[in-house]
Amino acid sequence: MSELVLTTYDWVPELPRGHVRDIRVRWALEEAGLPYRVESTPFRPRNAEHFSHQPFGQVPWLTDGDISIFESGAILLHLGERSDALLPADTRGRSDAKEWLFAALNSVEAASQPWSLLAFSGESDTTAAWRLFDGFLKVHRLQHMEPVLAAREWLARSFSVADILMADVLRLVDRFGGLANYPACHDYVARATARPSFLKAHADQMAHFAAADAA
Amino acid sequence: MSELVLTTYDWVPELPRGHVRDIRVRWALEEAGLPYRVESTPFRPRNAEHFSHQPFGQVPWLTDGDISIFESGAILLHLGERSDALLPADTRGRSDAKEWLFAALNSVEAASQPWSLLAFSGESDTTAAWRLFDGFLKVHRLQHMEPVLAAREWLARSFSVADILMADVLRLVDRFGGLANYPACHDYVARATARPSFLKAHADQMAHFAAADAA
Repeated sequence: MSELVLTTYDWVPELPRGHVRDIRVRWALEEAGLPYRVESTPFRPRNAEHFSHQPFGQVPWLTDGDISIFESGAILLHLGERSDALLPADTRGRSDAKEWLFAALNSVEAASQPWSLLAFSGESDTTAAWRLFDGFLKVHRLQHMEPVLAAREWLARSFSVADILMADVLRLVDRFGGLANYPACHDYVARATARPSFLKAHADQMAHFAAADAA
Repeated sequence: MSELVLTTYDWVPELPRGHVRDIRVRWALEEAGLPYRVESTPFRPRNAEHFSHQPFGQVPWLTDGDISIFESGAILLHLGERSDALLPADTRGRSDAKEWLFAALNSVEAASQPWSLLAFSGESDTTAAWRLFDGFLKVHRLQHMEPVLAAREWLARSFSVADILMADVLRLVDRFGGLANYPACHDYVARATARPSFLKAHADQMAHFAAADAA
């Protein structure tokens, strides 16, 4: 098997530490027990090599031999094909995990990202835009996730890449207080982030950026 | 092979017609030449059967034998596994198509959706939120897509599910005038939507909802 190399920024400001998306890939690699190496690319300025791997100048990307992959969803799907610890082996479970992987990104994160951007940019909760995106996230997404997560431990019965993405997406909502009225969503995040592989991935990301401060 | 059944709403208002997401699945099925049947679910009220297939009460979903799949990205990935017309056969091309499939949804649509929601809700272009999301879409996404689409005909060299999603996402941005300064993005949408399979999918969706008016 070819060597797996995960690339992330060499440094980021304090605030996003623990939430840079390489954590999703670290978490999956730890769950699967796949050996990997972490490399860095400059946070600023982004160079041409960076754009050749990630056309939007973001992180992470993963190389697996001569294949280079960006988008955390695509990377986790790729790793899922390499390990039953990340995708159930049966047809039905595999299909369920894949649809929830897309739902985590396209239904939930698509709603939580504008909400987080507004919360982050200091938009007050009195603007029409805030009401629009707060309702989009809560009424159209979290309200429907709540009974789903109250009824099962993991999205596709056994833990999978879908849970890594959904828990990471909801974890940021939780950080901004958005899960206050959604106890099953909150408990799900707590359950997922108590896993040793998440704790190691989180500690490793924090150490990676702390090392850059010290350098 | 099991029968493919695509479910969409029985009716929608005039404005979203031609843009309801079943068009992505119709387009893929037409490209692949796979036989399928279309069924309807009530637009209102959404019933329990609907939520059992699509937990957010949206459309479309696809059933393939006893497998039921929601999320247009997951459905197109599933269909891609059934046809080389939708995913390149070689490892590298297949990986490229998958990462661009995620990029269409998670990088581009994740930015175009809040932009469209604001444009649609009549938020004026003087608000801080509009400036935030307009910049997010244009500076962080379209500006990077422009050289990519200027340099190639299709995202993964041969036409794939990634193009169906990217073109459908950009088509809505174009409808609201967002591609005015991005000629390569605009030309790409024109190129993709000139394909007979898109034209048939679009005509079929329009006829489906027109039939509901007549009923």
